[in-house]
Amino acid sequence: MIAVLKQGTDQQQIDSLIEWFHSQGLRTNLSQGDEVTIIGLIGDTTKVDADLVESLDIVESVKRITEPFKRANRKFHPDSTVVEVGDAKVKFGAGNFQIIAGPCSVESREQILTVARAVKAAGATLLRGGAFKPRTSPYDFQGMKAEGLELLLEAKKETGLPIVSELMSAENIPLFENVDVIQVGARNFQNFELLKELGELRKPILLKRGIAGTLKELLMSAEYIMAGGNDQIILCERGIRTYETATRNTLDISAVPMLHEMTHLPVIIDPSHATGMARLVEPMSLAAAACGADGLIIEVHNDPQHAKCDGAQSLTPEQFNVLATKVCKVREAVA
Amino acid sequence: MIAVLKQGTDQQQIDSLIEWFHSQGLRTNLSQGDEVTIIGLIGDTTKVDADLVESLDIVESVKRITEPFKRANRKFHPDSTVVEVGDAKVKFGAGNFQIIAGPCSVESREQILTVARAVKAAGATLLRGGAFKPRTSPYDFQGMKAEGLELLLEAKKETGLPIVSELMSAENIPLFENVDVIQVGARNFQNFELLKELGELRKPILLKRGIAGTLKELLMSAEYIMAGGNDQIILCERGIRTYETATRNTLDISAVPMLHEMTHLPVIIDPSHATGMARLVEPMSLAAAACGADGLIIEVHNDPQHAKCDGAQSLTPEQFNVLATKVCKVREAVA
Amino acid sequence: MIAVLKQGTDQQQIDSLIEWFHSQGLRTNLSQGDEVTIIGLIGDTTKVDADLVESLDIVESVKRITEPFKRANRKFHPDSTVVEVGDAKVKFGAGNFQIIAGPCSVESREQILTVARAVKAAGATLLRGGAFKPRTSPYDFQGMKAEGLELLLEAKKETGLPIVSELMSAENIPLFENVDVIQVGARNFQNFELLKELGELRKPILLKRGIAGTLKELLMSAEYIMAGGNDQIILCERGIRTYETATRNTLDISAVPMLHEMTHLPVIIDPSHATGMARLVEPMSLAAAACGADGLIIEVHNDPQHAKCDGAQSLTPEQFNVLATKVCKVREAVA
Amino acid sequence: MIAVLKQGTDQQQIDSLIEWFHSQGLRTNLSQGDEVTIIGLIGDTTKVDADLVESLDIVESVKRITEPFKRANRKFHPDSTVVEVGDAKVKFGAGNFQIIAGPCSVESREQILTVARAVKAAGATLLRGGAFKPRTSPYDFQGMKAEGLELLLEAKKETGLPIVSELMSAENIPLFENVDVIQVGARNFQNFELLKELGELRKPILLKRGIAGTLKELLMSAEYIMAGGNDQIILCERGIRTYETATRNTLDISAVPMLHEMTHLPVIIDPSHATGMARLVEPMSLAAAACGADGLIIEVHNDPQHAKCDGAQSLTPEQFNVLATKVCKVREAVA
Repeated sequence: MIAVLKQGTDQQQIDSLIEWFHSQGLRTNLSQGDEVTIIGLIGDTTKVDADLVESLDIVESVKRITEPFKRANRKFHPDSTVVEVGDAKVKFGAGNFQIIAGPCSVESREQILTVARAVKAAGATLLRGGAFKPRTSPYDFQGMKAEGLELLLEAKKETGLPIVSELMSAENIPLFENVDVIQVGARNFQNFELLKELGELRKPILLKRGIAGTLKELLMSAEYIMAGGNDQIILCERGIRTYETATRNTLDISAVPMLHEMTHLPVIIDPSHATGMARLVEPMSLAAAACGADGLIIEVHNDPQHAKCDGAQSLTPEQFNVLATKVCKVREAVA
Repeated sequence: MIAVLKQGTDQQQIDSLIEWFHSQGLRTNLSQGDEVTIIGLIGDTTKVDADLVESLDIVESVKRITEPFKRANRKFHPDSTVVEVGDAKVKFGAGNFQIIAGPCSVESREQILTVARAVKAAGATLLRGGAFKPRTSPYDFQGMKAEGLELLLEAKKETGLPIVSELMSAENIPLFENVDVIQVGARNFQNFELLKELGELRKPILLKRGIAGTLKELLMSAEYIMAGGNDQIILCERGIRTYETATRNTLDISAVPMLHEMTHLPVIIDPSHATGMARLVEPMSLAAAACGADGLIIEVHNDPQHAKCDGAQSLTPEQFNVLATKVCKVREAVA
Repeated sequence: MIAVLKQGTDQQQIDSLIEWFHSQGLRTNLSQGDEVTIIGLIGDTTKVDADLVESLDIVESVKRITEPFKRANRKFHPDSTVVEVGDAKVKFGAGNFQIIAGPCSVESREQILTVARAVKAAGATLLRGGAFKPRTSPYDFQGMKAEGLELLLEAKKETGLPIVSELMSAENIPLFENVDVIQVGARNFQNFELLKELGELRKPILLKRGIAGTLKELLMSAEYIMAGGNDQIILCERGIRTYETATRNTLDISAVPMLHEMTHLPVIIDPSHATGMARLVEPMSLAAAACGADGLIIEVHNDPQHAKCDGAQSLTPEQFNVLATKVCKVREAVA
Repeated sequence: MIAVLKQGTDQQQIDSLIEWFHSQGLRTNLSQGDEVTIIGLIGDTTKVDADLVESLDIVESVKRITEPFKRANRKFHPDSTVVEVGDAKVKFGAGNFQIIAGPCSVESREQILTVARAVKAAGATLLRGGAFKPRTSPYDFQGMKAEGLELLLEAKKETGLPIVSELMSAENIPLFENVDVIQVGARNFQNFELLKELGELRKPILLKRGIAGTLKELLMSAEYIMAGGNDQIILCERGIRTYETATRNTLDISAVPMLHEMTHLPVIIDPSHATGMARLVEPMSLAAAACGADGLIIEVHNDPQHAKCDGAQSLTPEQFNVLATKVCKVREAVA
């Protein structure tokens, strides 16, 4: 951490500030330039409140040099983490690529079984399905809840696909015992109480980036889970909120290589939520595969026009089949 | 709701779509123009999935005409809601203006009592203090929790100021029994499970806008609480995330008159979090008072340079005193 | 265009508004619902000021149904435009893909010739080089100007590569007579006076999206050029400004398929400016190729560490060579 | 400027980098910490390309300590600049507050004279009126151009109000000889060729912030004008582009105190363009006056419903009169 002092600060004030830093167990390095005087802080600065130092009368600005995330940081863990899911040990990361597919929400036994069989046949290696649904309106369908999870488990049993489902409240964790990957949705990505509880589990977590979350914040949220001892985390970029309204969100595709540089955790793309339009899902999936994503999560519905949610962004099984084939080809091309 | 059809749609397809709308209990109005054909939907369209209709082959676009929020909507409740807090019935809205002040977090008995007395003397009418703190880093101070609430209650008893504190998880609701206003923070503004639980209470809720929440989404979140029967909601604009980095967030000051138009609920401003800098808190408070806000929530600390959080944006009691006096003058000027 | 009327509007006011629309040469269609009354306008509504109608006392909101761009609109020109550049008729669009490469700015004869030869050898089909440079600071290198253009022309003569260079002011148009493609930079994308002048030329224009330009605005700017009779336009997505600071801008990769739907003009990607980091240029180029872009424009410098501008985002010729080979493979995979 | 080196950099590489900095006339200060090694650069670092240094193999990141703007920087010019306009020497800044009012565009002699008289009577001290109009669509009214300027001058002669009008192209500068303040619109705020030409004039410039311009960029654009010797600049915040669509733009009200801290130049607010809605203009004007703005620029039209542009955001003279009275009261309250 670097503290830049205001012009005109006298030596006594500088000495006093340096003494204060020393009292916090830090060493300092003083650099006095023509226009600016800088104090470099050496030691563990993660506990220092940068905003507070910046508010001191003689301080002009403070700049952090080291990132506040440790466990998620590639600097301290150069090797890529491989997250293994389910009994079949389906792998994400370090060259392992998976496609998660399934409906936005579980609607009925027939629906989830039909879709599960179809996406498996087309090449999906995990099944997704929402049982607890975060909806902007209290008047919209809120999911089948426990019953939905039961149906998902039935689909898992029949097809052998590990399952992914979203958790919205810590009190429902017991219901997710046999769910293979617990998803944290974009709206809960800074629900820290929930993240802490997930840190206690020993089960892979699919952590979605918040709609206005920075990459650093995403890694700090991963850090919350990892601080509890659970380091099986799959990060997911799902579109961010910008001024552009032609698409529902803006897919931040550069998050893939950028996150790969910042962290050792696997990174997947959700093109369905990023664009909100079924016809953009394929091109965005191909882009993700081309630039090194570790996987995709895609909404597929047997009858999108009658889906209870997100029908507009859901592919039919046939469309998904075409997509999966093309994704394979692109992955071979960049291998 | 309006469905605009694609060019070249034939009459049979139009008839079939109209029939489908009728089967959903809606009436329709067909308008065939030179370039576009439009079907207007008449009746209760809140249950219609606009995205889904838009994804139909013959539909070019869909536009909602009526807002999806009902209980929070001023159209259906023209009179401004007055939220009354505590036994003293401190009022927000319809011309009633209040200043909530206090530290970011409760740190000790002495600290909270000192600040409580000071802000009361300066004109604050409610006391704020965090006991459960949402922190970006798992390694930062997470609040005094239950003990912090106890100290807040002690400060309330001594000063008579009603208290406001943030709740992060529904399981802690019992601890908030004697807290006068429960705050929902920006990061939880779409934690729908939490909002539903708050709808069951009969206690005022201070609902902060999410860092990237639209005004409509804020009202939909209020709607979640109101749908449960609790209509004692104070909305709070606290800065939104934009590309500008000179200030921590960008205070959306036009949200005050805009929300007053959209909803009957009171609207207050949090200049401390909006700017992140103590020296900007006064000018932003004056701006808020000038444009019709129903109150302010301001961070005040007896010793900002040693605060455990948000010291950089906290005022001293002396600074707060000056601010409160000026705010009064501005309110008189616009009365 | 649709005008939604306020509740409680009486029949006389409605009749009077309808009469006013008729006086403007429009036909109307009235739809009276339970909660809302809507007037649909039929005819040429491009001249109607939507904001003005919306400000009328009895009008609640106005929604445009048809896009304000005509010549750039795919609806009226279903076939993709092929832009042909130079005597060699290098083609962009409708399946034709080109890579433009070269330095941010022309710095010397040796530099531009070295780079030109290298990028040609690696597979670039056009040469870029800045002679007039838009720099945020007036104290930064502003380009070699006319002399830079001369050197570019020399490189064109030797290598046969058509050249692309940025124009910042209409008064310099005569200097660009032998430049094959005139580039309009992000900062000038709504410099309407300049766009009008370019509409008078019969030369391809590379139009970059503004840093906060919507896709609609980009097409309106193209419309300015096309309205003058010049329809040889190549659109370029080069990153937009968002809240995320990990990358310089956020590459809006979904603009590729979205623009292909909205317009018949070719769309290329500039991964260098979008990310600002050389090491992200390759993955973003592969993503662009995978999702159907019609080309790339990439900064290449023989000695990035001594470049006069944008060294941080420039590839070496060797890196560019690797990139070009991979891009080819991805294009084959998605063909 | 500070260069943070990557972990594992050996001493020889460090020495070589230090030597390179010395060769550029800079002195250095080396700080070697537990986890990071930092080189501080001392001397004139404005010419150093931070991005380039950051791209070096051994450099992790680079942070600028001093701002790149000098002439506009309050650090080097602590006293507030007072901009004096016209023969009457109407003053902006250092406590001097002015209201500029008038129509979006000059439409006819009668219109501009009527509005000029009305706004003068209501307390406006300058008259605005557009003759050259930047319109998103090439098919919209583009202004009366030279004829419009003539009519403005006539209104100036009759009322004595100094006039403000927008310039879109340097070639029209001669037409603006008798215009008192030349406005640079948001879309041209980084039209550097135009800014350079304005630097040659000795006439006040009203420089609007770009729709996605940072405060630093705004000051760099002011620096372009000042570098030419013209330091009579009035800065104008007019709303920025964010994700929120309830208002046309988001008024960044905190830009007022923030700019006052960063620069000595006066800062005014344009509430008309910021919100796009006439009914929000008054509350935003009061907010601006309360937080210390040096003036306002407001659109007023004698017949908003028939205005050729921006009718929706224009006040009637009566509404403007009420606003001006309230603004006075707020200014007195905060004096």
